[in-house]
Amino acid sequence: MKGARPPHADKLRWWGWGDPAHPQALPAHALDFLRETVGIAARPRPPVALGQVRLAAPALSEPTAAALREIVGAEGLRDDHAERVVHAAGKGYPDLVRLRAGAPEGAPDAVVRPGDHEQLRAVLDRCAQASVAVVPWGGGTSVVGGVAPLRGEHAAVIALDIERMARVLELDRISRTVTVQAGIRAPALERALAPSGFTLGHFPQSYEYVSLGGCAATRSAGQASSGYGRIEQLVLGMRFAAPAGEIALAPFPASAAGPELRRLLVGSEGTLGVIEELTLRVRPAPRERIYEGVFFADFAAGVEALRELAQQRACPDVARLSDEAETRMSLALAGAGGVKGRLGRAYIGLRGYGEGCLAILGFEGEAEEVAARRKRALELARRGGGLAVGRSPGEAWRKGRFSAPYLRDELLTQGVMVETLETATSWSNLRALHRAVATAIADALAAQGTPGLVMCHVSHLYETGASLYFTFLARQREGAELEQWAAVKRAASEAIVAGGGTITHHHAVGRDHAPWLADEVGREGVAVLRALKGELDPAGIMNPGKLLP
Amino acid sequence: MKGARPPHADKLRWWGWGDPAHPQALPAHALDFLRETVGIAARPRPPVALGQVRLAAPALSEPTAAALREIVGAEGLRDDHAERVVHAAGKGYPDLVRLRAGAPEGAPDAVVRPGDHEQLRAVLDRCAQASVAVVPWGGGTSVVGGVAPLRGEHAAVIALDIERMARVLELDRISRTVTVQAGIRAPALERALAPSGFTLGHFPQSYEYVSLGGCAATRSAGQASSGYGRIEQLVLGMRFAAPAGEIALAPFPASAAGPELRRLLVGSEGTLGVIEELTLRVRPAPRERIYEGVFFADFAAGVEALRELAQQRACPDVARLSDEAETRMSLALAGAGGVKGRLGRAYIGLRGYGEGCLAILGFEGEAEEVAARRKRALELARRGGGLAVGRSPGEAWRKGRFSAPYLRDELLTQGVMVETLETATSWSNLRALHRAVATAIADALAAQGTPGLVMCHVSHLYETGASLYFTFLARQREGAELEQWAAVKRAASEAIVAGGGTITHHHAVGRDHAPWLADEVGREGVAVLRALKGELDPAGIMNPGKLLP
Repeated sequence: MKGARPPHADKLRWWGWGDPAHPQALPAHALDFLRETVGIAARPRPPVALGQVRLAAPALSEPTAAALREIVGAEGLRDDHAERVVHAAGKGYPDLVRLRAGAPEGAPDAVVRPGDHEQLRAVLDRCAQASVAVVPWGGGTSVVGGVAPLRGEHAAVIALDIERMARVLELDRISRTVTVQAGIRAPALERALAPSGFTLGHFPQSYEYVSLGGCAATRSAGQASSGYGRIEQLVLGMRFAAPAGEIALAPFPASAAGPELRRLLVGSEGTLGVIEELTLRVRPAPRERIYEGVFFADFAAGVEALRELAQQRACPDVARLSDEAETRMSLALAGAGGVKGRLGRAYIGLRGYGEGCLAILGFEGEAEEVAARRKRALELARRGGGLAVGRSPGEAWRKGRFSAPYLRDELLTQGVMVETLETATSWSNLRALHRAVATAIADALAAQGTPGLVMCHVSHLYETGASLYFTFLARQREGAELEQWAAVKRAASEAIVAGGGTITHHHAVGRDHAPWLADEVGREGVAVLRALKGELDPAGIMNPGKLLP
Repeated sequence: MKGARPPHADKLRWWGWGDPAHPQALPAHALDFLRETVGIAARPRPPVALGQVRLAAPALSEPTAAALREIVGAEGLRDDHAERVVHAAGKGYPDLVRLRAGAPEGAPDAVVRPGDHEQLRAVLDRCAQASVAVVPWGGGTSVVGGVAPLRGEHAAVIALDIERMARVLELDRISRTVTVQAGIRAPALERALAPSGFTLGHFPQSYEYVSLGGCAATRSAGQASSGYGRIEQLVLGMRFAAPAGEIALAPFPASAAGPELRRLLVGSEGTLGVIEELTLRVRPAPRERIYEGVFFADFAAGVEALRELAQQRACPDVARLSDEAETRMSLALAGAGGVKGRLGRAYIGLRGYGEGCLAILGFEGEAEEVAARRKRALELARRGGGLAVGRSPGEAWRKGRFSAPYLRDELLTQGVMVETLETATSWSNLRALHRAVATAIADALAAQGTPGLVMCHVSHLYETGASLYFTFLARQREGAELEQWAAVKRAASEAIVAGGGTITHHHAVGRDHAPWLADEVGREGVAVLRALKGELDPAGIMNPGKLLP
């Protein structure tokens, strides 16, 4: 596998998400719904052609380019227009707005693909000597500006794409750990584990394209993290290449040997160095998977039921609860055909359209064990007022669990802004924070002259709290899309900080959340992160402008 | 509660463990057993009287003492002989050897007890200005030299005893978190939680005296951590006072906001600052507790069964497996009266004395839920060759779970060295590491001319591995007790590092493990820790000589 480019890498749309051959998914009734609610553009706004994307000429000096080429080989360094455009941004809303208009903020001066440890090491050394900024690049799926090609004080910037470092190095079946090079994509790892009957169980919405190194660098949480754990719980060992040197941490199951350095490097977002190898906990692939819907009369009842599940050793592997607005929207987008069977009867017949909250509970594992856990969870949900409405909503969610980014592309074409943001807080504060953030987003959208739809779901349950994941839609302010977005993002972030939430539960800090990091960790916390950077990256070349305010 | 000294504080023996009124526990047959195996001293070797302990005169300058007294009040600063002796060392084997002989390495020049945040802050500032080293002091129970009164480059050293900062600040029943001042002792916290029906569930062997701040600073693992989680999983939020400033981390259930700073401060062992407040996860106090014995034909079979439990979502809250030597020793010390009922019949009648391995499995929670988990666990244990031998060994273990340190005092009086050390590794490496470390200890003891007994148990199960906890006994080399100990400790630590284990699973690094920290985190990992210290403690006053090699 070494040296080969994964076949999907070329297929990720440079201006959006996923395989260009992916079918359009926005049905006519959904478009009608949007037209009636937030409004859409007078005519479709497709992205420009690749050739129309405007980039400055590459700024990498010829001696540096030659030196890097010597390290990684001619094929390992690319500075053609297409490669630079593909690595010009991540997949956040502002990234896509800029790319679709053919006007990214910039692009890496070259894309460099080391093939092994020695090449990676040599590239970092050379860049430190030559004052070239380095943006580590895994799947390129950041939605918070985490891979923006910022050069900081430096003469040039490269994208350090680790896709050639994607081998599975070792599977320890007894201890249930796998050691991989960090460039491996999540689906490739699952494919490699499947013949041995294991799974990592890490399924962020970006699953189809993320690298495991990227997941670890950004403290990703998969959709099934309530069951399988967040990435920081899956990462046991690590090999980390920093400009100052290497840190290798053995995959001990636990230790008391001082501050937990692996939790320092997980979440470092490329600002301290490059995660090169990971040892990850794996589990037997589930033989049974049951995803089903449970309906609650209102958000408060649903939240209480989820809390019970999380606190009574009865947490499903996936648990999410849409608020009233998201429930209404999901059913509207699903259309009449999506409201079937018991759910439809319960929802429409018994309660009236536009009310109530749908939860999805998912259970994975051995059949007998799943049956026991499911029985207990449904019993608790029922006691909390939940009405089990069968598997069709669960299966529908599971089928569409990675499709939102595709839908976003279509909404952008229709002139509709769609953005998501997330937080987490304690159970006792959850509903207050939900109200505060939803209100802040709605008010900010209205203040832009583009009143929108704001919806949310609870997911990622913990014993002491849960995350809130907001989605909002509004008509784009044509010509002022970025200002519109920035105003709403700012309002939401301020409401999160003021309301006692973390600025990010799993999207990471990147560039977009950096202004609020000091609100989360304090001035001295930021100073600690700067001290770490000073030690590991004394020349300051690693991913400038990210994480630190 | 503020300002009052906990009643037990005065009762901890200055030369050993616990309440001086605690009854002696070493029965005659156990003494016979020791005499026949490792040998005992010709006559008892009691500790010297308190007045005979030799200390240098306090070195704190009068202006600094006056300034500190102004901050904390006259009662808040003590430099009398008794206070200095009590704070002269922790409770490790070499500490006790020195104390009992009346010859501690040194003592703090004063014991300072701030009563609130402002006083703590002012004490740190004053010490930084005056170049006075600060040893944060919780329960004083470190067994790795973590509270040794080392002054490093500084003019003087104080023990910063936080026992006056021991209030419960807030209980969030909905989110199941409690916020406390870090000086609170574990039993006091449990007493405070009990009326609300909650428990922290953190029961290290030092439970009777530890502070929660100390637990967090040293990455403690309670005996029931398989069920309740290690301290780093219980710590959600924190207020941390460093000489350079304060870090306050909100108790978010999870976050992706950069490197996890709370995991940096947990485990910092007083070298970066003082943990001042903690927000901890709590759980409902169990209404049912079942502890029972399961007998395995050999260590290998027991290890496999524990691995199954850990990997099949069937882990008891407490699970530990004694190897053959520890099983033999436990039964010998228990005497004929301790081998009762089914265990006795199975052990003696069916298998022959001196073979086999005893596991203790403990389940805590609601009756129905405990019954279900227990049934499943015992079924898995049986499939793995385990023979359930009833509750009496489990109850015996539970009753004696905090008594080993008392026993150690008695063994020292008899001229018997007893020491424990621990590590953790993957399941696939567990048995090899067990052999390697046990052999290294036995060989080192023999090389000292004092062949000993070496035993071990597996505990603290994780999906990917477990800990190994070694105990060894040997006749003391009179007059060369510390050299004898150091030689064995070195041999064991080298075997752990060479054999792929962590240098400590829950005792922390302190001074004793510091020489091996670089083996664990590498040269660059140590450099990172030094950079952190440079930022948070620029004058280098915090707990000199600990953690960092």
